[in-house]
Amino acid sequence: MSRYWSEVVHSLTPYVPGEQPKLPDLVKLNTNENPYGPSPLALAAIQAELDTLRLYPDPNADRLKAAIAECHGIAPANVFVGNGSDEVLAHVFLALLRHDLPTLFPDITYSFYPVYCGLYDIAYETVPLADDFSIRPEDYRRPNGGIIFANPNAPTGRLLLLPQIETILAANPDSVVVVDEAYIDFGGDSAVPLVARYPNLLVVQTLSKSRSLAGLRIGFAIGHVDLIQALVRVKDSFNSYPLDRLAIAGGAAAMADRDHFERTRRAVIVSRAWLSGELADLGFEVLPSAANFIFARHPERDAGELAKALRERSIIVRHFRQPRIEQYLRITVGSDGQCQALVAALRRLLAP
Amino acid sequence: MSRYWSEVVHSLTPYVPGEQPKLPDLVKLNTNENPYGPSPLALAAIQAELDTLRLYPDPNADRLKAAIAECHGIAPANVFVGNGSDEVLAHVFLALLRHDLPTLFPDITYSFYPVYCGLYDIAYETVPLADDFSIRPEDYRRPNGGIIFANPNAPTGRLLLLPQIETILAANPDSVVVVDEAYIDFGGDSAVPLVARYPNLLVVQTLSKSRSLAGLRIGFAIGHVDLIQALVRVKDSFNSYPLDRLAIAGGAAAMADRDHFERTRRAVIVSRAWLSGELADLGFEVLPSAANFIFARHPERDAGELAKALRERSIIVRHFRQPRIEQYLRITVGSDGQCQALVAALRRLLAP
Repeated sequence: MSRYWSEVVHSLTPYVPGEQPKLPDLVKLNTNENPYGPSPLALAAIQAELDTLRLYPDPNADRLKAAIAECHGIAPANVFVGNGSDEVLAHVFLALLRHDLPTLFPDITYSFYPVYCGLYDIAYETVPLADDFSIRPEDYRRPNGGIIFANPNAPTGRLLLLPQIETILAANPDSVVVVDEAYIDFGGDSAVPLVARYPNLLVVQTLSKSRSLAGLRIGFAIGHVDLIQALVRVKDSFNSYPLDRLAIAGGAAAMADRDHFERTRRAVIVSRAWLSGELADLGFEVLPSAANFIFARHPERDAGELAKALRERSIIVRHFRQPRIEQYLRITVGSDGQCQALVAALRRLLAP
Repeated sequence: MSRYWSEVVHSLTPYVPGEQPKLPDLVKLNTNENPYGPSPLALAAIQAELDTLRLYPDPNADRLKAAIAECHGIAPANVFVGNGSDEVLAHVFLALLRHDLPTLFPDITYSFYPVYCGLYDIAYETVPLADDFSIRPEDYRRPNGGIIFANPNAPTGRLLLLPQIETILAANPDSVVVVDEAYIDFGGDSAVPLVARYPNLLVVQTLSKSRSLAGLRIGFAIGHVDLIQALVRVKDSFNSYPLDRLAIAGGAAAMADRDHFERTRRAVIVSRAWLSGELADLGFEVLPSAANFIFARHPERDAGELAKALRERSIIVRHFRQPRIEQYLRITVGSDGQCQALVAALRRLLAP
């Protein structure tokens, strides 16, 4: 606390990301990183850019926007890029969700959403998920200044189907509906094709998960050009060059490498099925996941205790001390070796 | 314009950065890039980090903070880092300059400052520079919610000395005084040593200029831990991971390479002296510059016309269509070859 702080600083409750411990030999299954690494073409593109670092980047990152547009079959004018989807989301809250009526989002979802509301003084209401942790589209028929949810939802992994998303879009023509698709490539259909028909739809994606570039910080949004223009105006009033040269080059190459993308995301999906089965065999209740993580609880073992016991064995999973989900663990689908190590450790912990 | 835009989007007047034309063989002297390129150790550190991109970066960038702290002889707890000094400044405006009283800055200075005020609804007043474009410390004795100026100032290049900065700090114990030192390494004494005595001082620097890493996007602030904590709270409510892995690794190595830093900044200073002399010989009035650019006007030639004529010869300099300085050109101190090309072109243009 300090007299120099502006009022908003006093009232903030910052987001707490999953820890990034600097320990060797860790089985790190807490922040949904991709075990397979990025496209070699992305690394080559970064290498080729190294001798240009004395120059500013393209403030519009045209090369990256073009690659994203090509990948999604849309125009570059429908693409906004930012320094990770977290930055994109921050601009979305300020540019498109700050209205007189409250923004709506599920009670269980990405826990950064209420933090952005605090940062930008945005009123919000949370909408309870159903008992099975699914989003009920009919719950989003109420006055609002905007709607945002993750699909697949986090940390539950549950998927909403496109007809259900269309129900929400059609019921809210005066609000922007933001679909945060950080995990969509691991098991769902993207809402991007709906952008052509719904000027109120904004889809947010990231290269951190399915493109395995969490360390490079690239996120993007796709929507009607009016929505993109709002984001550009805020970005150009905040930071002219949010993406560095290496991110623009590497990100563009990663988007263009369809083979690597398809091969690695399928490998994650196969591992998810195996790990889900093993966890069920161990007595866990496993939510159906469309993401690169599994959300599960054991009916007889406290989740916090389990997370602690795993940690003592150098295995880190994520545990949220939050109502409704405090007995669940969110477990990243790691490499085969990591998944096997987790199952072996749990088997010993749960042995009678 | 769109009904989906929040109120603030309608009212924004975004910053316009110097253009980044994608043309070959350009003599690019418009955005104050360093001609000498970054430390080879920075490039090696980036190379060494390439195989970790699947993992998130350290959200606190401890390695980079430690290198900056070591370089400036302070503690890491006094350092804040961000995605270019533009992002750092954005957080500074929201966290430390948004108060009931207006923020003060010179009428001629970095033109992003009023843009931040628009973004965050911050009242401000501009304080006219003296006729010789110097900052008069006594003008900053008036009620305010914060003070910010660039030193050396941009685009004038004029330097304020440390005793003058102390006058401003001592006269404003209830306000944060931000000294934006993007160009300080080319000719002035940093105010960092004053941080220990003035809890209201925040110094902002960048690796874009004297470290020649404009393409990597790294800026930082140094100040009392209370000021740093305010920035951390805002950052953790905006984007957990603003710096990617390559920036953290490359930036830390660049800060550690003192030899490269000293050699290249001295080369810029030598070129600046030569170029200033040549411009004076051509009849320009040249302001004394402590930066890696020169601010000059020709008493008989319109600055806009000159900039246009240079552009037709593939030489780009910066011209601001702004009261008081519309007859000036801001010319980056480039490589010897670039400086010579500029002088030769001007000589032809100005020939009777």
